[in-house]
Amino acid sequence: MTKEISSTQNPLIKQLVQLTEKSRERRKNNLFVIEGVREISLALQGGYSIETLCIAPDICTDAHRSKLLTTVSPSTEVIFISTEVYQKIAYRTTTEGVIAIANAKTQGLSSLSFNKKNPLILIAEAPEKPGNIGALLRTADAAALDAVIIANPLTDLYNPNIIRSSVGCVFTNQIATGTTQEIISWLKQQEIATYCAALSASVPYHSVDFTQASAIVVGTEATGLSETWLEHSTQNIIIPMQGAIDSMNVSVAAAIITFEAKRQRGFQS
Amino acid sequence: MTKEISSTQNPLIKQLVQLTEKSRERRKNNLFVIEGVREISLALQGGYSIETLCIAPDICTDAHRSKLLTTVSPSTEVIFISTEVYQKIAYRTTTEGVIAIANAKTQGLSSLSFNKKNPLILIAEAPEKPGNIGALLRTADAAALDAVIIANPLTDLYNPNIIRSSVGCVFTNQIATGTTQEIISWLKQQEIATYCAALSASVPYHSVDFTQASAIVVGTEATGLSETWLEHSTQNIIIPMQGAIDSMNVSVAAAIITFEAKRQRGFQS
Repeated sequence: MTKEISSTQNPLIKQLVQLTEKSRERRKNNLFVIEGVREISLALQGGYSIETLCIAPDICTDAHRSKLLTTVSPSTEVIFISTEVYQKIAYRTTTEGVIAIANAKTQGLSSLSFNKKNPLILIAEAPEKPGNIGALLRTADAAALDAVIIANPLTDLYNPNIIRSSVGCVFTNQIATGTTQEIISWLKQQEIATYCAALSASVPYHSVDFTQASAIVVGTEATGLSETWLEHSTQNIIIPMQGAIDSMNVSVAAAIITFEAKRQRGFQS
Repeated sequence: MTKEISSTQNPLIKQLVQLTEKSRERRKNNLFVIEGVREISLALQGGYSIETLCIAPDICTDAHRSKLLTTVSPSTEVIFISTEVYQKIAYRTTTEGVIAIANAKTQGLSSLSFNKKNPLILIAEAPEKPGNIGALLRTADAAALDAVIIANPLTDLYNPNIIRSSVGCVFTNQIATGTTQEIISWLKQQEIATYCAALSASVPYHSVDFTQASAIVVGTEATGLSETWLEHSTQNIIIPMQGAIDSMNVSVAAAIITFEAKRQRGFQS
């Protein structure tokens, strides 16, 4: 029989709220929360396993409900929740009456695997805003990049604002995290050329060869990349700017370089 | 003698709040509000005239105060406001104790002028979010585009969220607005080739020639460009995407195409 919850005091509901709000809770339990039919479907496609699927039957359409129920694993616990409970826990107001608790994936560098000799990778060091990470992940998906790596992450990638602003691309990309030092060692080991975006670089981004195994590395808007990256770079690169302010959003800068690399590669995936 | 205001009921303060909050008030009076030393300085550099400069002396540093006072025109009215009044009217919390009322510029197509034969222009049709418009203006500044045109604008460009998200680039770009129909006629008259970004286009963006007078036209993320644009285009272009979701932020898409055009032009401004 399917469980039903109509109290916001229920321990599962309390856990769900904690997992949504607190990075520490997510890390401790290796669990996170996904809202919305599209996002849950993308996570399932991306190989995530769903522990618990909560459905608010008065909000969720029959089509959505059956789509999800036929896609989740038989071991997923399905729970019906009242509209009141749903409204209390829903992070967004436009989602379709479904919230899931999913198992986080290991995001170590050793989990990355490539099906080609010349992978193209995007690396962001300590990006500050979830919205910027979301935008980077959308660009990475559109470019079919082979991996996205976050160096010295300030938050876990299952932050609800990252899931939302990535429109689910957090589930479609191959992602890893690590310290800057770990990632630099890994890149050398893998013989991947490293191109660091820097305002002080003298080589324009479009004059380097991105057709070999390459990593594009971007820092924060405020302080750019750390010295460690700039020193261990194959080549530091600059996007020539000619305006009055020359201030570029980090996700915009990453996209410009990424698509120049794609152009050089003839847009082959 | 300089005026001092310590009441939030003062008519000038009430007007300032109205101008910040209401597009209709801005249009009616042809005035708008600028906050922050950097933003006001950029507006002055961009040829805007300041009607009234409000300074909160307990917050504004001496350096900032004298910088602004030596830059504004002698006809600018300078008013000191109390910290309490400043905190009531300040839109952001991090600004430096200065708020100005400035004269809006005419943004008709006829106001545009170019100092070269092959201008590069960015056009956005009915962009929805102030943040996206701000990001487009930042990219346009960095690329030193010859103009930015907003077709069928949903808001005036002096919306405080646009000023803020553009980090002042709303003042550094040459900007015009108009209806889609007006802009298309103007482009034909000026003999500017029109390249419309469309998901259904068959020609990749990097295969067209952007070295001649060119306009790059982008629509909204939700619905793309209107049929009118796609029908009157010199060539519709697509950014090849290969991901699971293929959803790109409009400012990211505009930047990718804009910098391909810059690359083709050898980054000459």
